[in-house]
Amino acid sequence: MMPASLLDQLVDALRVLPGVGPKSAQRIVYQLLQRDREGAAKLARTLADALTQVKHCTRCNTFTEAEICERCLSPQRDPAQLCVVEMPSDLAVMESTQAYRGLYYVLMGRISPLDGVGPRELQLDQLLARATDGLVEEVILATNFTNEGEATAHYLGEMLRARGLRVSRIARGVPVGGELEHTDLGTVAQAFAERRGW
Amino acid sequence: MMPASLLDQLVDALRVLPGVGPKSAQRIVYQLLQRDREGAAKLARTLADALTQVKHCTRCNTFTEAEICERCLSPQRDPAQLCVVEMPSDLAVMESTQAYRGLYYVLMGRISPLDGVGPRELQLDQLLARATDGLVEEVILATNFTNEGEATAHYLGEMLRARGLRVSRIARGVPVGGELEHTDLGTVAQAFAERRGW
Ligand SMILES: [Zn+2]
Ligand SMILES: [Zn+2]
Repeated sequence: MMPASLLDQLVDALRVLPGVGPKSAQRIVYQLLQRDREGAAKLARTLADALTQVKHCTRCNTFTEAEICERCLSPQRDPAQLCVVEMPSDLAVMESTQAYRGLYYVLMGRISPLDGVGPRELQLDQLLARATDGLVEEVILATNFTNEGEATAHYLGEMLRARGLRVSRIARGVPVGGELEHTDLGTVAQAFAERRGW
Repeated sequence: MMPASLLDQLVDALRVLPGVGPKSAQRIVYQLLQRDREGAAKLARTLADALTQVKHCTRCNTFTEAEICERCLSPQRDPAQLCVVEMPSDLAVMESTQAYRGLYYVLMGRISPLDGVGPRELQLDQLLARATDGLVEEVILATNFTNEGEATAHYLGEMLRARGLRVSRIARGVPVGGELEHTDLGTVAQAFAERRGW
């Protein structure tokens, strides 16, 4: 068998992108090599840089280029409140509501047995260590109201209450089955205000 | 203003991909950095390699890593026939029909005034030089049957006939408005067999 050409390798490598099949990978290759080589070069460079330089904040677990992210270092945030979200995009939604002044922990996922993601894969030890730093008084669970987000919230609630922490869940103002990222800010703000003991 | 973070730069760089907006770029970033760093690294590497090593065949203009591609060098192909297609994917469709044993010229586009692509942008001089090599007896126009593909075929027909070349056009078996890439092979093969003087 002949070694695959660079073009075939590139078509193959593009399949790493969500939703890209062989046909659209082919189209993307032509687009990149024929129409926008400069943009393509920038993409290759930025992606390589991000892979080496972007890591996880040792406190909140979100993506950052620093050891500890700016938000975690800010003296303006209330260290007594810790809001747990699934993804950085959920954190961004919470911030946009301007309803919250505490700190965050980003799970970078959710418990999802079908995808083989359990408590171990989510590295929940790290959340536990973070939540029991002696300053955190309340952990606010802001995972999505999907089945997986709810299961995650239940698991986290039990785990954190067992350590004597006060735990709350944002109110089910977010539609059942809905995701924070696709909910209007007002609803998310209200859901935060109406959080209940968990 | 703060310099954009590497993550923001990567979200921005991903916009070079066709159909990728800010939201899906964000999703792709999480997918790449969180779920498949190995695949992402391979993508960055392969894309950079392709950009430096993939060029155009000096004879048929398709993508290749060599000066002249394998097909153009093959003694098995009939040098008296030259089939002109818009894109490498169209060439692949023609080859799949196994109805053609001549050589190709790939325009890497089509005449499209709305996109600012005219004869000059398509570098048709190169096609003209290729078609007048003394060996080519017939040029078969296999551009798409879209408005732009038809306009391109008309232009090429006049240009090539003016040089005394015999020009044919694959038959309109391909549905009007249709593209080769989305046509079944039988129809494409028939369209080839029924090509007519142009
Ligand atoms: Zn942080
Ligand atoms: Zn060639």
